[in-house]
Amino acid sequence: MTKKTLVNSKLICVALNDKKQLAALEGTFNEAPYKKPPTQPVLYYKPRNTWNTDGATIEWAKDFSGQAVESMVVGASLGVVLGKETCRVSPEEALQYVGGYTLVGDFSLPEESYYRPDIKGKCLDTTAPVGPEIVPADKISNPDALTVTLSVKGEEKSRFDLSQMERSVAELISKISYIMTLQPGEIIAVGFAGDRVPVAQGDQVEASIEGVGTLKNTLGGA
Amino acid sequence: MTKKTLVNSKLICVALNDKKQLAALEGTFNEAPYKKPPTQPVLYYKPRNTWNTDGATIEWAKDFSGQAVESMVVGASLGVVLGKETCRVSPEEALQYVGGYTLVGDFSLPEESYYRPDIKGKCLDTTAPVGPEIVPADKISNPDALTVTLSVKGEEKSRFDLSQMERSVAELISKISYIMTLQPGEIIAVGFAGDRVPVAQGDQVEASIEGVGTLKNTLGGA
Repeated sequence: MTKKTLVNSKLICVALNDKKQLAALEGTFNEAPYKKPPTQPVLYYKPRNTWNTDGATIEWAKDFSGQAVESMVVGASLGVVLGKETCRVSPEEALQYVGGYTLVGDFSLPEESYYRPDIKGKCLDTTAPVGPEIVPADKISNPDALTVTLSVKGEEKSRFDLSQMERSVAELISKISYIMTLQPGEIIAVGFAGDRVPVAQGDQVEASIEGVGTLKNTLGGA
Repeated sequence: MTKKTLVNSKLICVALNDKKQLAALEGTFNEAPYKKPPTQPVLYYKPRNTWNTDGATIEWAKDFSGQAVESMVVGASLGVVLGKETCRVSPEEALQYVGGYTLVGDFSLPEESYYRPDIKGKCLDTTAPVGPEIVPADKISNPDALTVTLSVKGEEKSRFDLSQMERSVAELISKISYIMTLQPGEIIAVGFAGDRVPVAQGDQVEASIEGVGTLKNTLGGA
């Protein structure tokens, strides 16, 4: 990898933060074993081996026998970059802890269920590009007013207004800061629009937010 | 924290790697939503904010309203420290990638279910002490022959022979190396004995493996 990752020590992703997706899943959540929708943000990590950069190739995943997997999917999210140590802050003060904004791509295997933590599908090498740069927080007056678009081979496949998130950027920072202390440079991907977008080997993928930039990546071959 | 963490970039824990615990849970696993036991290692992370050292105090957790939680639990595991980059290695060659061994403590909130990824309960600040040192791999001829003991206030509460693990150290390294590339200094906690041990504020906890050392920690007050 030629460029250096923009992530410092931790990349947290928020799942199920799309009001429409939550509504669609309501029936499932009301069945066993939970019998109710999640009451806290549902989080997962993209660990260091996943971190990647704008312009980089995303490795096409292989299965346990070394064969190329049949399908991969992608989602894109606003990335909130913490500017200072953040522990138990209120939603009202949370945005003061933001240092900047960027884009996070999340390439993975298709999800099989919403239950068991899917480390195998989510933590593939090189599958979390972040970039193209960190835009200082003072350039973005209201992060919840942004729109994330995702294009594959030049064609728009997904468009998500952050106003449709179940929890706002400030609410998420606050909630997560009660779960763990966050450090400067750590990044929260605040939410991906409901359905992930299928991609194929060699596809060019662009994630874009006006004022934050465009993150471009290519899927590798097998 | 006065001492420096022994972890480099990643601490992976393996859940449900105790044959006896798996057998006890068989009924649960055969119900919805899975209808079968896990077929791959069940993994979770202890992220950077959790990393702690031998001799250090573990913070007593607070709930969202700032009140001390009622109960915390602890488990102890052998920690396998990778010695070199490890990607898609076979079980036969896996132990050649080990740089050393240490102990990992995992303090957490009691588990409520085996389904939803429990980031809130597992990723509390300071809850993953590692140490007291990294013993070079060549000092341990067979890691699967070790026994992990856990004492609270000087009384032994748990004893686990690693020969009772569902997957051996070599099998785990191999399996995980097919999921993600591991780097030198990253640590795998290979498995905790079935039931976690309850602890109270002020308790002294000792995790011990003959030839690897004793990891001592104290629970803080509220």
